[in-house]
Amino acid sequence: MSSSIKKIGVFTSGGDSPGMNAAIRAVVRTCAYMEIDCLGIYRGYEGMIDGDFIPLNARSVNNIINKGGTFLKSARCPEFRTPEGRQKAFDQLQSAGVDALVVIGGDGSLSGAEIFHAEHNIPYIGIPGTIDNDIFGTRYTLGFDTALNTVVEAIDKIRDTASSHHRLFFVEVMGRDVGHIALNAGVGAGAEEILIPEEDLGLDRLLDSLKRSKARGKSSSIVVVAEGDRTTGKNVYELKEYVEQHLPVYDVRVCVLGHMQRGGAPTCFDRVLASRMGVKAVEALLEGKTGFMAGIRDNDIILTPVSEAIKGHTKIDKELIRVSDIMTI
Amino acid sequence: MSSSIKKIGVFTSGGDSPGMNAAIRAVVRTCAYMEIDCLGIYRGYEGMIDGDFIPLNARSVNNIINKGGTFLKSARCPEFRTPEGRQKAFDQLQSAGVDALVVIGGDGSLSGAEIFHAEHNIPYIGIPGTIDNDIFGTRYTLGFDTALNTVVEAIDKIRDTASSHHRLFFVEVMGRDVGHIALNAGVGAGAEEILIPEEDLGLDRLLDSLKRSKARGKSSSIVVVAEGDRTTGKNVYELKEYVEQHLPVYDVRVCVLGHMQRGGAPTCFDRVLASRMGVKAVEALLEGKTGFMAGIRDNDIILTPVSEAIKGHTKIDKELIRVSDIMTI
Amino acid sequence: MSSSIKKIGVFTSGGDSPGMNAAIRAVVRTCAYMEIDCLGIYRGYEGMIDGDFIPLNARSVNNIINKGGTFLKSARCPEFRTPEGRQKAFDQLQSAGVDALVVIGGDGSLSGAEIFHAEHNIPYIGIPGTIDNDIFGTRYTLGFDTALNTVVEAIDKIRDTASSHHRLFFVEVMGRDVGHIALNAGVGAGAEEILIPEEDLGLDRLLDSLKRSKARGKSSSIVVVAEGDRTTGKNVYELKEYVEQHLPVYDVRVCVLGHMQRGGAPTCFDRVLASRMGVKAVEALLEGKTGFMAGIRDNDIILTPVSEAIKGHTKIDKELIRVSDIMTI
Amino acid sequence: MSSSIKKIGVFTSGGDSPGMNAAIRAVVRTCAYMEIDCLGIYRGYEGMIDGDFIPLNARSVNNIINKGGTFLKSARCPEFRTPEGRQKAFDQLQSAGVDALVVIGGDGSLSGAEIFHAEHNIPYIGIPGTIDNDIFGTRYTLGFDTALNTVVEAIDKIRDTASSHHRLFFVEVMGRDVGHIALNAGVGAGAEEILIPEEDLGLDRLLDSLKRSKARGKSSSIVVVAEGDRTTGKNVYELKEYVEQHLPVYDVRVCVLGHMQRGGAPTCFDRVLASRMGVKAVEALLEGKTGFMAGIRDNDIILTPVSEAIKGHTKIDKELIRVSDIMTI
Repeated sequence: MSSSIKKIGVFTSGGDSPGMNAAIRAVVRTCAYMEIDCLGIYRGYEGMIDGDFIPLNARSVNNIINKGGTFLKSARCPEFRTPEGRQKAFDQLQSAGVDALVVIGGDGSLSGAEIFHAEHNIPYIGIPGTIDNDIFGTRYTLGFDTALNTVVEAIDKIRDTASSHHRLFFVEVMGRDVGHIALNAGVGAGAEEILIPEEDLGLDRLLDSLKRSKARGKSSSIVVVAEGDRTTGKNVYELKEYVEQHLPVYDVRVCVLGHMQRGGAPTCFDRVLASRMGVKAVEALLEGKTGFMAGIRDNDIILTPVSEAIKGHTKIDKELIRVSDIMTI
Repeated sequence: MSSSIKKIGVFTSGGDSPGMNAAIRAVVRTCAYMEIDCLGIYRGYEGMIDGDFIPLNARSVNNIINKGGTFLKSARCPEFRTPEGRQKAFDQLQSAGVDALVVIGGDGSLSGAEIFHAEHNIPYIGIPGTIDNDIFGTRYTLGFDTALNTVVEAIDKIRDTASSHHRLFFVEVMGRDVGHIALNAGVGAGAEEILIPEEDLGLDRLLDSLKRSKARGKSSSIVVVAEGDRTTGKNVYELKEYVEQHLPVYDVRVCVLGHMQRGGAPTCFDRVLASRMGVKAVEALLEGKTGFMAGIRDNDIILTPVSEAIKGHTKIDKELIRVSDIMTI
Repeated sequence: MSSSIKKIGVFTSGGDSPGMNAAIRAVVRTCAYMEIDCLGIYRGYEGMIDGDFIPLNARSVNNIINKGGTFLKSARCPEFRTPEGRQKAFDQLQSAGVDALVVIGGDGSLSGAEIFHAEHNIPYIGIPGTIDNDIFGTRYTLGFDTALNTVVEAIDKIRDTASSHHRLFFVEVMGRDVGHIALNAGVGAGAEEILIPEEDLGLDRLLDSLKRSKARGKSSSIVVVAEGDRTTGKNVYELKEYVEQHLPVYDVRVCVLGHMQRGGAPTCFDRVLASRMGVKAVEALLEGKTGFMAGIRDNDIILTPVSEAIKGHTKIDKELIRVSDIMTI
Repeated sequence: MSSSIKKIGVFTSGGDSPGMNAAIRAVVRTCAYMEIDCLGIYRGYEGMIDGDFIPLNARSVNNIINKGGTFLKSARCPEFRTPEGRQKAFDQLQSAGVDALVVIGGDGSLSGAEIFHAEHNIPYIGIPGTIDNDIFGTRYTLGFDTALNTVVEAIDKIRDTASSHHRLFFVEVMGRDVGHIALNAGVGAGAEEILIPEEDLGLDRLLDSLKRSKARGKSSSIVVVAEGDRTTGKNVYELKEYVEQHLPVYDVRVCVLGHMQRGGAPTCFDRVLASRMGVKAVEALLEGKTGFMAGIRDNDIILTPVSEAIKGHTKIDKELIRVSDIMTI
């Protein structure tokens, strides 16, 4: 491949997600395979501004495919939101001889790269790394599958104690604006109800549903709540109080799963996805492309313009909401 | 829905796979939701011939979504291969008032249902339950995703000891005719080589690759081998001996993962897939369909005629073979 | 063995813990082995008062050794605290022909049995089932080892994201009065600080320690806090605010692990312990003993009078506190 | 502490086991705490002879407490069995200024250290790192608890498929000379029979037991076999053939768990044990002790002369054999 690109910089940015290390490894090894240089940038845009770089070769990324987090670290960087910050970052990349970038992160990180490219004309390809699955242009974001399994395993454990005591649990899972984790993990964990921002269940229907569940002889109940859900007008702690007042038959508990959802060894799916996206990102750069995000559609790795990807969310799956309703009969 | 179907029989057949219980649960609960009866058939076609049935309601399938195996048991049944056996089975279903069937199993099980339907005109829908992912008409068979994670977690453990001792491991995984598990889990586990029936690597190229790997300073090597692979003309034990003779620099070990690959709590993916396929199967029957298999394509649950599904295998993914080659630089 | 005991009742009471099912199984099978009857009592003392019983034989407890929770359910029962409630319970046992009891639970449950025995002279043996490890007379309570692993695995995941972002996490674990889970899991997870009720660290020393940790270049910090700890005068949320004010260099997060700590498949240790304690409990009853609790000391299953066991807690291990201090250098 | 020891060398030797990294970390950090130097020796005695050393400080061992294997690598070293080899090793240590050693490994590794000390008078303390639990002087060797859980989790998976198909599985686990893994994991996994070198069951009794098991309606059977067991005169593959001939009612399968038993993240127990033993080893050296092995007895970390530790094995637990017999009724 006769490309003018001789050195690619790779970094992770924003919230971390399982599979980021696997994606870095794939970028690094594809560079090695294509016989171009690869430079790791620590702490995302912050490290770019500081020139906190490390040369990476195929052996630098041994034994990281199965590690959660990101060994290049991540950070949020207010300074990069200013033209001055971005100029500093560009100067650092110039000094280091970086011709192109692979950015691994969520929609904020991709937007940053898009602006950076508009100003400084440095080619880049994005890899959607976030557990939230909220990026348009890919069926799965990197880390989503792992997070689902982490949540489902935690709820399996909670179910043990819930069904030993005839209890009702509100389990809050991540998802500030979207309910993908809640809906999928809720169905996977056999939750009795699932509260997501996209679907207005309402407090009354929740109470009705819990009453019916009890009447049908269910020994315990799990309600999965997306952290961003406000369709009931209440957070999980308020929901607990409300249900205890209005349905005193239940002994109610709350569990907020929190940041453990971001960690852990990635699943096979996320490792393979990361590897394929990493290869695609480097290949696209070498083909002269820029401003695209790698994504998966059916079983194909595809490219979507970042400008489109950051505009919209993947829609919640109406059919899966229906499956959930049927399963909780 | 005005359908003539009043009672659906559900059973699992052939080798078991994680997610079968979740699929049974989905079939049972969809029947309850649609207000029709559901009858569980134990031990597949064998139990059908014996009339080994159990009525199932929504509560019968509490707390099984996360259990491996199949609580309806499974069996291979030579008698069902004879017209007399199938007649007995049909008579039993008639006595029990079963109008339609949902069969959960691999291609052998689906073929059986197809013949049964041709002879006795009983409607059926199939759900592809097998870890091998070798059925045409679905991107993922039920249990494949769980098996991949089981394999990858086992190889992660083997990697610990391999890299502590500079060892080479041949790890045999399931896949009698196809290399899907080997290829995906091999990429996910960061295997140095992957031997699958679909891709003739040859012994010489394997040796060359191992030599280069050693030369590049890799501290250990994992070669994943599909059990059905004969492209080297050798099984894993013979490969060990051959490499020890021709590459004495390596301390070689063999690990055959075996039947643990069929068990374990299903992943979130397999639980959701099972739930969606179960709903689809019952709905299809109530819509008057027969002879189809539920499958997933991108994110849609689709129906494929069983006659087509059992004809061919899902092809191995050439792009993933390429990704694997690049990753092992 | 010539004992007058012909039928043993077994039940679980109070908070559930992993290994309770394995203990029930062991009691049931030992009864079968000794050729005496075994009656399961649902929902602890509540089910005893209600006569909610089920005969159990060796096959009733197939495939439960690896299940969390308790299939006999558990409950707290205010009525049993009254002489009238206990009279009802005794009458139910008499009607059912129960000669002796095995109670599996924490110190409250054992105290109940002790009073019951004093009033009605029914022989009983206790098995210490609680994740808190707070019962005198046994090195390990049933479920403690499993809970430690659940906590350590969760913190391993949190560490991934903590070290990707240079964050400080306060992780609250169970232990209302005692710090056994916090101390052991804290050492196991490599926590930077551990706050337990038994050891007054104080806020100032915590701040100092975090400052030093930062100065030594630690990229992230985990502070494990027993839920019952008030040595700092603050709960985890107040600690977060306090540290953010006084050590603004840290980006602080809170994670309350909650009830998932009570569930999950028991570890091998807890399964073996449950099996041994179950055998011991039945054997002790058949030898005419009563009012003892089975416990483990070194590798021996021993008996301690319940009157002693419920008086005191196992002391926190000073040497392990020292190990923790050394490890966090 | 006024000791003449200024620099301690630490290494792992022989087969690796989970917890070795945690033990190295504990040795390194205790040295840092005591303000003495610590030198890592790669590849055990082999690296000692080669002078393959690395200085280690408190930060060198960040984030390894939860990693399987040993980052210092391990090896078996024939040259160290010769006086010349040991002389070379001693010279290397002298040049590097190493005053004392901590050796982490099995009985072969401890024997090597004992001879080395006799010849060259270099103080050492041993830490028993092996999954086999076959060293006298400690209730638990490092890695044993983790290996038990790995085995039990694998058999749980095998049980899923065994009970779906009414199958009999022979599962071979590690233990060349001793049956500790087989006995404990067998009880933990609810195995129907357990074959260990220490207890001569004999083929006839095995057949009888399997017949009775079938007669009692067990739907599946797991027989756990220690790899070193020859009490039946047959290995697992021969056992399979024998049972298929003499008990054709069974569909028999074999599973050899192999090297995955040596890997994986250590359990909380092994991490805490490693931390305590590491502290003890350094403290003992600084107190002028040599030739001891750290061990655990009840909850105390104790020292046993290596000369005694390597003489005998921990005896198999007769009471646990009896528990196993009762459980398989």
